[in-house]
Formats: sequence, structure tokens, C-alpha cells
Amino acid sequence: MRQVTASQLDDIALGAAVLGTGGGGDPYIGKLMAKAAIERNGPVTMLDPSEVADDALVIPAGMMGAPTVMLEKIPRGTEIVTAFEAIQSFLGRKATATMSVEAGGLNSTTPFIVAAELGIPLVDADMMGRAFPELQMVMPTLYGITATPLALADEKGNSAILNTINNKWTETLARTMTVDMGCSAMLAAYVMSGVQVKEAVVGRTITQIEMIGRVIREAQTAHVDPIEAVRGATGGYVIWRGKVTDVSRRTETGFARGDALISGVAQFEGKMLRISFQNEFLIAQTDHEILVTTPDLITVLDAETGHPITTESLRYGFRVAVLGMPCDRRWRSPKGVELVGPGYFGYKTEYRAIEERYGVSLG
Amino acid sequence: MRQVTASQLDDIALGAAVLGTGGGGDPYIGKLMAKAAIERNGPVTMLDPSEVADDALVIPAGMMGAPTVMLEKIPRGTEIVTAFEAIQSFLGRKATATMSVEAGGLNSTTPFIVAAELGIPLVDADMMGRAFPELQMVMPTLYGITATPLALADEKGNSAILNTINNKWTETLARTMTVDMGCSAMLAAYVMSGVQVKEAVVGRTITQIEMIGRVIREAQTAHVDPIEAVRGATGGYVIWRGKVTDVSRRTETGFARGDALISGVAQFEGKMLRISFQNEFLIAQTDHEILVTTPDLITVLDAETGHPITTESLRYGFRVAVLGMPCDRRWRSPKGVELVGPGYFGYKTEYRAIEERYGVSLG
Repeated sequence: MRQVTASQLDDIALGAAVLGTGGGGDPYIGKLMAKAAIERNGPVTMLDPSEVADDALVIPAGMMGAPTVMLEKIPRGTEIVTAFEAIQSFLGRKATATMSVEAGGLNSTTPFIVAAELGIPLVDADMMGRAFPELQMVMPTLYGITATPLALADEKGNSAILNTINNKWTETLARTMTVDMGCSAMLAAYVMSGVQVKEAVVGRTITQIEMIGRVIREAQTAHVDPIEAVRGATGGYVIWRGKVTDVSRRTETGFARGDALISGVAQFEGKMLRISFQNEFLIAQTDHEILVTTPDLITVLDAETGHPITTESLRYGFRVAVLGMPCDRRWRSPKGVELVGPGYFGYKTEYRAIEERYGVSLG
Repeated sequence: MRQVTASQLDDIALGAAVLGTGGGGDPYIGKLMAKAAIERNGPVTMLDPSEVADDALVIPAGMMGAPTVMLEKIPRGTEIVTAFEAIQSFLGRKATATMSVEAGGLNSTTPFIVAAELGIPLVDADMMGRAFPELQMVMPTLYGITATPLALADEKGNSAILNTINNKWTETLARTMTVDMGCSAMLAAYVMSGVQVKEAVVGRTITQIEMIGRVIREAQTAHVDPIEAVRGATGGYVIWRGKVTDVSRRTETGFARGDALISGVAQFEGKMLRISFQNEFLIAQTDHEILVTTPDLITVLDAETGHPITTESLRYGFRVAVLGMPCDRRWRSPKGVELVGPGYFGYKTEYRAIEERYGVSLG
């Protein structure tokens, strides 16, 4: 158990964008809202998963929608609490703690708003160990835990409670409702007991992203290569260095979809990398070979600063390094690959673990 | 207070289609489901609005969606109970009684399923005194009563509870969710106290539609002109007699929209009537003048049998009479006309009461 103050959110948000693989919304907005909430209400208590009581009621909270919209339609900050209170009222029970839905971007920090405003602790964990674009793509789905009851709320004051027959139906119904609500909404879902939290989520990811964020920040003052620093902190591989030569994007049915082309420099000179994204970066390939696919992580870093670049802020001319990182091993199970592997997103390729492609020792 | 048995539902469903002005879904399917529920559970107790206790909890129930879909995707019959139980569970209270959302078609009989299955009485009333295509178009809206909490359920087992800032937002969110659920869903909404029921709904409409249905049935055996019989029972006007020469329809965003052209016979010979519909018949006009507009009622009757014809079963060649009927006077208030008048549906004309056009004594 430890206290998290407003100043620590800078590193947390920065590191979250690395595991966010380009998605999950701009961490800046979430960070500002969470800082304001902590400054109003005091520090947030963060529990290690092992410290959560078996009979605890843990309610994860987060944002749903197209992050490109989030840049223009800034949340009021109260809708996350509206969603949380709606589900508590539906359950007829108060939450013991809240948790991050995903470690990526905005959703790493939005639960801090709930924790600060309601005075409840946050579990040091998330449901993906990264970010994914759809609601059923969480570790609890692999454990048969239902997304519903799920609460959705918008900044106008509308809210909904869904109860569905499976987590894919939750995604379908919540997604359209999110589009109706203006392409972004706040949600509370995947209500779990302490026993379930200890088994079915990815533990200590908030501590991990805080560490990654600190490494990036300190690399700048210590004159260390920030790319190498992030690689070391994540156990990843530098799969590309180059310049962004084209980005095409479209916002469809509540998602930010697109492709980025990155021409190579140094050992990648003369070759072109294509990264496809759907809120998150999902597959990185050259004309000849696939380098990394989901569920392994792909993150684009600014070559100078090591700062991660989200899919919505990626622009022509950026000098970047691309990092590939191994995902939580449970995503590599047959059910995991079926849920979040390349086939689900329409890429006609088998999943191969990044360590198989690059070797464990390559670094 | 009286008991309604399965055999009475024939007249009720038949009369409901007259006040349904072509909409509200095929009464046949709703009738079959309600009859089966009454045969399983016994007769339904129907309360006069004056018999409802002031502190009663009345929860109206009905179907939402495009009735054209309803013909192909027949409801399982349990989803209306699912919706009802979802809202009771949300409220933490059991309903004292249920009620019809609209007197039209399917929704005149669907609440009988809830009443029979749950063993609660039905109030002899509805919220429109007719049928309308959108959820906010009910008398309670004029009295400031909110549609939410609203429960929506599909035949697969998915359900949702909505809480919105106004009844128009309820319509928006419930409509898209209905489309996701397969273009039809069951709902429970507009929770009211007994005091509100006595003031804000249209009373005794179930008795009224039962009487209209009986008149049509008896006209056939008594060799009375069924059109005149219906006209007499509804206080309406025969505004047209003729033959359907064209029907165009399209199912858009959960609605059945279209136009019907009816060439005149007898005193209407040589002229053409156009009726436009959006689930319900909304405006009847010739090339030269408007004859009737919403919120007054327009119903198309089979010229031989007097049976009402729904918008989705209207076909080329049908010999028909068109009936115009005065609506509940409260729809004619400025707020009423704003909510359900011709302007709302995009027709550039002022509302004029049907009695003004035809004279009270014309008949």
C-alpha cells in the first residue's frame, strides 16, 4: 500500500502511453483531470493486488470511444463519477476499490479521479497490461468474468446500465451508445471480487508504467539514449528507426483507424515499415515480413526524447523509433489469440511471439 | 375493476389497430402472445384509472422498433418480462400495476403478457390515446414526467437501463440500442405514481378499443356498413374512399417510413389522396388541400370488412376507406403540437383540428 500524489501522475501518464501502444486517448487530458481531483481530495491510496481482501468489491472505471474525439470534446470530469455511482446504485453496494481498465493513455489515470473523488483506494493493476480497442478484450474475459452490469455516462448527464449475454454483446451495445453520446463516454464495468482480481487481471502495471515514465524523464537529464532506456525498462526490442512519411486515418463507428508508413534509417535504410492501427498499433510489417503483431505491444517513440506518440498525434516528418514488447503470457493462449490476435482484426497471419522472431537475447 | 380473458383480446387487438393509425406493430402477434400468457396464468384484472391507489407504482410496458421487422423476427414473449424485471430490480420495488404505452397494435396487448405472467393488474389506459413513432411522444412528457429509468430487453437476453436528461435523449439512445438488438426490443418506462396516472395518461382506452373491435366484428354478422359503424364508435369522419394505387416504403434507422397513394371512388372520383407514414399514418392530403394531420388520427380501413390496415400490410389494389378521428384535446395545446404536430415530422403546415376542417356535425 502506498500513497500516490498529484506529482507522481506525470510519470504514470508518460509510462502509460508506452504500454498504451498509441491508444487509450491522450494521457495529458486524463492526467490534468486526475491531478485536479487529487489536489481537491488528497492523495490516492494504491493497493498491491495481494492487499485486496478476498470479498472486496472492485469496480474498474475508464473511458470508451474514439480518442480523436476526446481531443476536441474534453470530458467534464464528473461523468466518470456518474458512471461509477450508477453502477453502485444498481448493485446496491459501495465499491471497496477501483482499478484501471487498461494501462494505456487516458485510462491509466481516469480511475484516479474516481478514487480521489470517492475516497476509495485504487488497485495497482489493469485488465490488459496494455491497451486494446474493444471492451471484451480484457484478461477477465479469458476467465469467464462478465463485463456487465456495465454503467455508461456522458458529460450531459445521460447514463445507462447494460446487462448482456456475453462480453461481445456488451461491446456492440456500449459502442453504439458511445457514438450516440458524442463518440466518447465514461464507463464502469467488470465488477470483480478480490479473489477474481488476484487471478484475472494484470498486476502492478501502475507501478510498472510509473517506472517507465521515470526512466524516460531521467534519460533526458542524464543524457542517456531514451530509446535504450525504455527498451530496457520494458524488456522490448527496437524493431525500427526512421521517419514518418505518411499517415492515413479515419474515424469509423467510434474507432480511430489508419496506417502509418515509416521509411528506415541506419540499419533500416532503404526499407519501409507499415504500422496499422485501430485506436492502438496492431501490426508492424515491411513489404517482406511481419515484425510484430497484436497481442505483443508496438509503440512509436520520438527518436530524440523517447516520448511515446499516440496514433492520433502521429504526423508526417516525425523522427521515430519503434519498440516491440512482449505481452502478458496469458494473451498467447489459444483463447487469448482468438480474442485479441491478428486474425480478430482481419490480418491474415498467425500470431508468433516477438521473442521467437527476435530471440530472447537480442534485446 | 373487471377481469379480461383470452377471448376478449380479439376485440381489443382489432380495435387497437384502429387507434393505432397503421402503426404499433401487427396486433396479431401481440394478441397470440398475450392469449398464451393468459391461458397459462389466468385472466388479467383491469383497473379503471380511478381505482389506482395514489401511491401505486405503475410501470408501462411495450415494444419498440420497426414493425416491419416484427413480422419476421417474432418475439420470444419473455423479453417483455425481462425488461419489466430489470426495471423493478433497478427501482428496488415491485410494480403495483402495468399499463399500455400506446393504444396501437401490438402495444395494446403486450402489457397483458406482463400482467398475466407477473400476476399484477393492468390499468385501463394508455399514454397516447393512439400510437406515435417516438418514445417522447406521450402525454406524460407534457406533464414533465421522465421516460427514465427505462429498461430495454431483446429476445437474446440482453438488457439495458437508461437514465437520461430528457425524454428526447431517451428516444435517441433507446432507438439506436433497439437497432443493435435487431430492430425490435421490449421496454418498460415512464414509471408513474397513481396520482400521475390519474392526471397524465389517456384513460379507459382499453375499454374504448374493445368496443371498437366489437363494433367491427358485429357489423359483419349484422350486415351493417362496418365503415359507418367504426366512424360512429370513434367520433370520426370518413375522409376518403378509394383504391390503393401505390405504396412506397423504406425501413430507416429503426422506422418504417413511406407514402401511400389512394385514387378516389364515389364522391372522391377523379382525385388522389396521399398518406405519408412513419410507423403511423401522419398526414393525409390531396394535390390541393390537407385533409388531416397528426396529432389527429388517420386510419385506413378495408372497405368490405372495416378491418384496419397497418402501414406494413398496405398493398396495391386494396379497396379502402380512410377515417379521420379527433385526438385527445391535450395534444392540441402548443406544447402538444410542438411534440407531435406536423412540424415535428417535417411537414410544412400548421395543425388544424379535424373538426375545424369538417365541422362538428358533418359526421
